[in-house]
Amino acid sequence: MRFAFDLHARDGAARTGVIRTPRGEIRTPAFMPVGTAATVKAMLPEQVRATGADIVLGNTYHLMLRPGAERVARLGGLHRFMNWDRPILTDSGGFQVMSLAALRQLTEEGVRFASHIDGARHMLSPETSMAIQRALGSDIVMAFDECTPFPADEATARASMELSMRWAERSRAAFGDRPGHALFGIQQGSVYRDQRAESAEALRRIGFDGYAIGGLAVGEGQALMFEVLDDAPAMLPEDRPRYLMGVGKPDDIVGAVVRGVDMFDCVLPTRSGRTGQAFTRRGAVNLRNARHRDDPRPLDADCTCPACRNYSRAYLHHLIRSGEMLGATLLTWHNLHYYQDLMAGLRGAIAAGTLSDFAAAFHAARAEGDIEPI
Amino acid sequence: MRFAFDLHARDGAARTGVIRTPRGEIRTPAFMPVGTAATVKAMLPEQVRATGADIVLGNTYHLMLRPGAERVARLGGLHRFMNWDRPILTDSGGFQVMSLAALRQLTEEGVRFASHIDGARHMLSPETSMAIQRALGSDIVMAFDECTPFPADEATARASMELSMRWAERSRAAFGDRPGHALFGIQQGSVYRDQRAESAEALRRIGFDGYAIGGLAVGEGQALMFEVLDDAPAMLPEDRPRYLMGVGKPDDIVGAVVRGVDMFDCVLPTRSGRTGQAFTRRGAVNLRNARHRDDPRPLDADCTCPACRNYSRAYLHHLIRSGEMLGATLLTWHNLHYYQDLMAGLRGAIAAGTLSDFAAAFHAARAEGDIEPI
Repeated sequence: MRFAFDLHARDGAARTGVIRTPRGEIRTPAFMPVGTAATVKAMLPEQVRATGADIVLGNTYHLMLRPGAERVARLGGLHRFMNWDRPILTDSGGFQVMSLAALRQLTEEGVRFASHIDGARHMLSPETSMAIQRALGSDIVMAFDECTPFPADEATARASMELSMRWAERSRAAFGDRPGHALFGIQQGSVYRDQRAESAEALRRIGFDGYAIGGLAVGEGQALMFEVLDDAPAMLPEDRPRYLMGVGKPDDIVGAVVRGVDMFDCVLPTRSGRTGQAFTRRGAVNLRNARHRDDPRPLDADCTCPACRNYSRAYLHHLIRSGEMLGATLLTWHNLHYYQDLMAGLRGAIAAGTLSDFAAAFHAARAEGDIEPI
Repeated sequence: MRFAFDLHARDGAARTGVIRTPRGEIRTPAFMPVGTAATVKAMLPEQVRATGADIVLGNTYHLMLRPGAERVARLGGLHRFMNWDRPILTDSGGFQVMSLAALRQLTEEGVRFASHIDGARHMLSPETSMAIQRALGSDIVMAFDECTPFPADEATARASMELSMRWAERSRAAFGDRPGHALFGIQQGSVYRDQRAESAEALRRIGFDGYAIGGLAVGEGQALMFEVLDDAPAMLPEDRPRYLMGVGKPDDIVGAVVRGVDMFDCVLPTRSGRTGQAFTRRGAVNLRNARHRDDPRPLDADCTCPACRNYSRAYLHHLIRSGEMLGATLLTWHNLHYYQDLMAGLRGAIAAGTLSDFAAAFHAARAEGDIEPI
């Protein structure tokens, strides 16, 4: 079975559909929980699936360092290793090698660096990134690119984008022909419309199974990000999935879906869950806050996740304050459930042609502010 | 419904039966996972139940300090707070106030101390301990006692035991008459047979629903502990459950069951799980060890827990080395599953009159040593 993308409905620039892979379908717009080190932190894979996730993301940089891609390959691949039999997307390592590794040296060939774990020297390039993602057994492989930092002047942004396009071509060549597996190209060009268009055209010429919008959510703020997204998605091929990398907050996602994006990933629901922050229809809630300590009500009475069905705000507060792992598990579960519910709501609204009503209701609920104070 | 203990079978000194409570039955010999701060660490309550646990233990000392017993009471009691509707046993706080609190001052009245969390001053006495355990809604309440330190000379042990017996009487008076709830007395007397007998007689005169053997597993070693257990259980009323507090390693439990003990609790399976130590039929295994890093086999091929059914030793090793919470969850689950399987095996063997065969097979498997090296 080949990788395919079927569009089912449009509402304005927004689209809903299904990505078909040999490992299962991905309903779009899709949110991909991040499973950095071969685990979505604090969750069992069956719990991740129970939230409604069709696909998870793995991080090439982390996995190449520990446990190592060849080791994962010998153990039967990432799916078997982490007991997740549905699709996995792996990033290229390009973003994290620049933000996490030590002694980075970027050249035309790629990036030489020292591991943040043990200082060992490694090389990431289009060719090594493709080899690593292949060894992991990733279903959706990302081209190796440089995530242009923000802010970047036009000349810096152009040089970075052009490097990424040369790397995109090398990634395509190194990936080869792998039926059932997909390779996504990544658009760069910072906040410059002409560079975004040029990058999109370069990627289209090379030809990919899907197209990501890179270099956003790196400090430019939502207004500027939405400005770029007013144009960027339409520059990419209509019949391929569009993936906005590293985004984001719930309102970022709603705004990006309205502008034509199909896929998202972000550590926010999982990372926030571990520190006591919960996402709800009425905005974010910090369970560490003392006002929850006597509150017998569920976090969100309308939510059907286990944290909301079986526990009080007071108990969640107690767990977070006491540093208990169960607090991280329950709030991660809730947050992933909230994100997947949001995606399901967006998909349903696009299919029904009521996305603007959905977005208006989404913003109205948040305007009421925090969940009911006690 | 009243608290009751039905003995079903005997094999030598060992017994198997059922403790009946309004919240459910407890099959004995029973192992009680420790849920110190209103959570069995790293586990959802339904996962704890899935291992076969009929009852969990809560710690009065921890809960009185955070979140506070009155707060738990206002929130509907400990069962509702932590979403565990089966029986809960709470300790009296006596052991932990002496091992964890600061500025302890022990008098005839009780123990004054400062919280290890925020330094606030508190008092634990037979009366306050009974009030706290009542507020928590505990099903099996423990009398407030002093766990005699080891070693203790005869005079020190006697003074400590006699104080505990006066406190046992005050605990009984303060507990009152609470149908469906049980109060257990705690035998002390260190390693001195006459003091153990005297303590048992004092408790029997006061009258309790069950009897604990205290002051063991405090550094005396297994040989000396078993020596005490050769006599201590038979000193306690035949028709009431006997609970050996804070024990222990799997072979401690087998030896104590053979000697007539019905109930156990210990942090070992949960605490060890969080640091990478797994219990198996063939002894303890440290998953941190590098020899597991390429091992595709399950931790224990004969175990049916999720850690063994769905993951390789290599993956468990990776999680533990990476400090991932899922490693703690999976190994805690495995360890609790192992402990509950052991208890089920002991119950079955006693019922069948084959306990000595069971114990011999248990020791033979361990004599083979660690699980198969790769």
